[in-house]
Amino acid sequence: MSAFPPAAAAQALAEHGEGSASLVKSAATRSGPLSRPGDIHRWLAEQRRRAVMDVRTVPLDSLTGWHTDPDTGDIVHASGRFFAIAGLDVQVPGAGVPHWQQPIIHQPEVGVLGILVKEFDGVLHCLMQAKIEPGNCNGVQLSPTVQATRSNYTRVHEGSPVPYLKYFQDAARHRVVADVRQSEQGSWFHGKRNRNMVVEVTEDVEVRDGFCWMTLGQLHELCAMDDALNMDTRSVLSCLPFVGRHLPDVLGRGRDDFTEALLRSCSGSGGSRNSMTEVLSWITDARTRTLSAARRIPLREVAHWHRENGRITHARGLFFNVIGVSVTAGSREVAAWSQPLVEPCDEGVVAFLAKPVDGVLHVLVHARVEAGFLDVVELGPTVQCTPSNYELLPAEARPAFLDEVLDAVPGRIRFDAVHSEEGGRLHHARNRYLIVEAADDFAPEHPDYQWLTLAQLSHLLRHSNYLNVQARSLVSCLHSMTT
Amino acid sequence: MSAFPPAAAAQALAEHGEGSASLVKSAATRSGPLSRPGDIHRWLAEQRRRAVMDVRTVPLDSLTGWHTDPDTGDIVHASGRFFAIAGLDVQVPGAGVPHWQQPIIHQPEVGVLGILVKEFDGVLHCLMQAKIEPGNCNGVQLSPTVQATRSNYTRVHEGSPVPYLKYFQDAARHRVVADVRQSEQGSWFHGKRNRNMVVEVTEDVEVRDGFCWMTLGQLHELCAMDDALNMDTRSVLSCLPFVGRHLPDVLGRGRDDFTEALLRSCSGSGGSRNSMTEVLSWITDARTRTLSAARRIPLREVAHWHRENGRITHARGLFFNVIGVSVTAGSREVAAWSQPLVEPCDEGVVAFLAKPVDGVLHVLVHARVEAGFLDVVELGPTVQCTPSNYELLPAEARPAFLDEVLDAVPGRIRFDAVHSEEGGRLHHARNRYLIVEAADDFAPEHPDYQWLTLAQLSHLLRHSNYLNVQARSLVSCLHSMTT
Repeated sequence: MSAFPPAAAAQALAEHGEGSASLVKSAATRSGPLSRPGDIHRWLAEQRRRAVMDVRTVPLDSLTGWHTDPDTGDIVHASGRFFAIAGLDVQVPGAGVPHWQQPIIHQPEVGVLGILVKEFDGVLHCLMQAKIEPGNCNGVQLSPTVQATRSNYTRVHEGSPVPYLKYFQDAARHRVVADVRQSEQGSWFHGKRNRNMVVEVTEDVEVRDGFCWMTLGQLHELCAMDDALNMDTRSVLSCLPFVGRHLPDVLGRGRDDFTEALLRSCSGSGGSRNSMTEVLSWITDARTRTLSAARRIPLREVAHWHRENGRITHARGLFFNVIGVSVTAGSREVAAWSQPLVEPCDEGVVAFLAKPVDGVLHVLVHARVEAGFLDVVELGPTVQCTPSNYELLPAEARPAFLDEVLDAVPGRIRFDAVHSEEGGRLHHARNRYLIVEAADDFAPEHPDYQWLTLAQLSHLLRHSNYLNVQARSLVSCLHSMTT
Repeated sequence: MSAFPPAAAAQALAEHGEGSASLVKSAATRSGPLSRPGDIHRWLAEQRRRAVMDVRTVPLDSLTGWHTDPDTGDIVHASGRFFAIAGLDVQVPGAGVPHWQQPIIHQPEVGVLGILVKEFDGVLHCLMQAKIEPGNCNGVQLSPTVQATRSNYTRVHEGSPVPYLKYFQDAARHRVVADVRQSEQGSWFHGKRNRNMVVEVTEDVEVRDGFCWMTLGQLHELCAMDDALNMDTRSVLSCLPFVGRHLPDVLGRGRDDFTEALLRSCSGSGGSRNSMTEVLSWITDARTRTLSAARRIPLREVAHWHRENGRITHARGLFFNVIGVSVTAGSREVAAWSQPLVEPCDEGVVAFLAKPVDGVLHVLVHARVEAGFLDVVELGPTVQCTPSNYELLPAEARPAFLDEVLDAVPGRIRFDAVHSEEGGRLHHARNRYLIVEAADDFAPEHPDYQWLTLAQLSHLLRHSNYLNVQARSLVSCLHSMTT
């Protein structure tokens, strides 16, 4: 572990309260006290070698335990639980596309995504799980300690109990670091939310096979690699306080203006272009201006989508497909099952344009309408789209700021990694996550976009329904850039 | 105006930011610079004399412009706008009454409730409106500057334009003090929310007939009187920062321990029994534990409710009635109209039990499920009920803590006034609002109740969906007790 100045810990404590010193130390620590350099990578590689999962695409009609409802055409599970593939009719008056219909994953449950943390030698460690999911392109990725749908933890599938769940079901007995319900992709899920939790324990915890204690510094390092931290891990990590302001220069490599501005942006004390009252008013206004309406309709009535050859596709081959898979696993609660998955047609781009304003980094967030949101609008990245969906459309339909992101010179690309989305419902859903430094003369005036500091994003992340899951992923990438 | 120490203003500025000094001065001011003692009361009395509104109960079948939908039995307006009386089926597994059906006001619009504020001689003043509503028991009450449903301000009823609306539609041009969407009564409204706004202007503002500039101190005085501030006024005022901590002892009457604890409770800096992280985690847990579901059903299918003799009543005469009224007004946008109103069967009780903990006042809030809430649970008062609804029920059905409130000795009743609820949809809906000092040995252990400081309530009120409308009314009563 690098030298860690006590002054930094004291400042962190003053700003973020109890427990933040060990959080800062954790971010600043890339090896030890539990692991030597390289240990984590070797452990993850070993987990990937050992994991066995055979995933085959099969027709939707042949999924064991699932059937097509004769009245609606919805694809539902025999238990009536888990999730369903249904239809959605969406109206967003005034939008580029003001009305459409689409298949949607209907899963109104609230699951638990929990990371268990514990101090070792004054350094906070996160208990991470090597988890294989049928939709992952690379098998194993790191998930939170617990990643359980309500069906999981109430044992609908009659598998084994969920390990470590008790710490999150009885969280008030421990120290809760973060606990907030957050949305998932509003374009693919209707009303799905998960409870994002970080719970600190002091008691001894048995480390089960497939689990490993890691520091935040180690997770930051993995965040810069493709497909290592799964979506749920990124989401939960984004809900931690931004302690970057108090970090020493761990690697001794010196810091440029951008990084200095990034660290200053983590601090709650001033320097933001807009006050929190102004930001909240802007969100309230966006939610009130927009009269969106989403209503569930029978899957068989969804216009422009067809069920043929055992799958559901859009008439023009765009957006996504709904496919069936048959899964055989060596290390899951249930050894074999089949299920529908949503398969995006192409890789997406998820990016923040960022720039220092008076020495404090601001990112450009977008007040986005997505059909599945609980409260009309959430804040998304500057750019969030699948570029190939727009190739056939006229230039004016092209998403705002996409060219600024894709045409950025390499020196302005501050973060660039491909991450996967939820591998339990989505098949090979990958996005390129980018933090791009905006050009000096970039000064957009658009009522749906606003510059926020990282401290402001952190403030909003203590509450539900403010940042969408793509923005939360990018926040965890920003966290990773502080060390 | 009383002597106002500059130090108090400076402290307010440091804690609450720009504009808070004039807010503190406003709270400390009960007369001048615009009015002498008694002026406001005389003005309100004059407005009440001049207001003319004739409200007659008529059968629901005879409402002009309204009809009963032949398929559903819902009562709807010919325009398809305004609101409808529909049916709701509610399931709250595990609750005392786990399943019921009821009529409900269906009004999924978001209206604007806005108070325009402006400094005169360094003292903030609120532009209040003397507004008469058909459901008010006493004709005129004080409303916000603007109180407009979306139908109002988009001119569905083709009346005159809403005065002062422009300041709130283009709020970003002015200084926004508060701007947040909040719920209404979840037992009477399905999905209705209003945008609560306070906007400060510096330009000249014409004071139209029926409007008057008032200080917060004057509004606090009126809040202690019955039926003077309407529900929307109380809701908007609750969203202002709690500046009580910085107030001088205006009336020079000295302060007891309770009042000192109340003022200390307004300060954001420490002294709370639970950290904000713990409070937020408790709310998240309550929302996740509870699996409530509310679904609109046809009004004619609602069990145990009957439409007879031109009104809708519960089979046992409990809860509320839906009645029709015919209205003729001398001073409204439209001179005559008729509409349905919901008429509660009796007066309710809305109370906070409060007590100093280590010298800082805490109030006991209740994580409540109401059918109309957007996100399962909001925080309500310690007690919120209509006692007579429980007279025929067994003792175990009696609401928690109701006896502690009703049996409190007079010396422990710190606030006691009867206020009206929304007079545009509800007929003579009145609640007795109480702040009761809990007995010294009162230490309830109940997972659905938690002690919060006033500063914590203020923090939550910057965001949507945390405090229900009855709790917000009580917060405005707590505000009024600081001067």
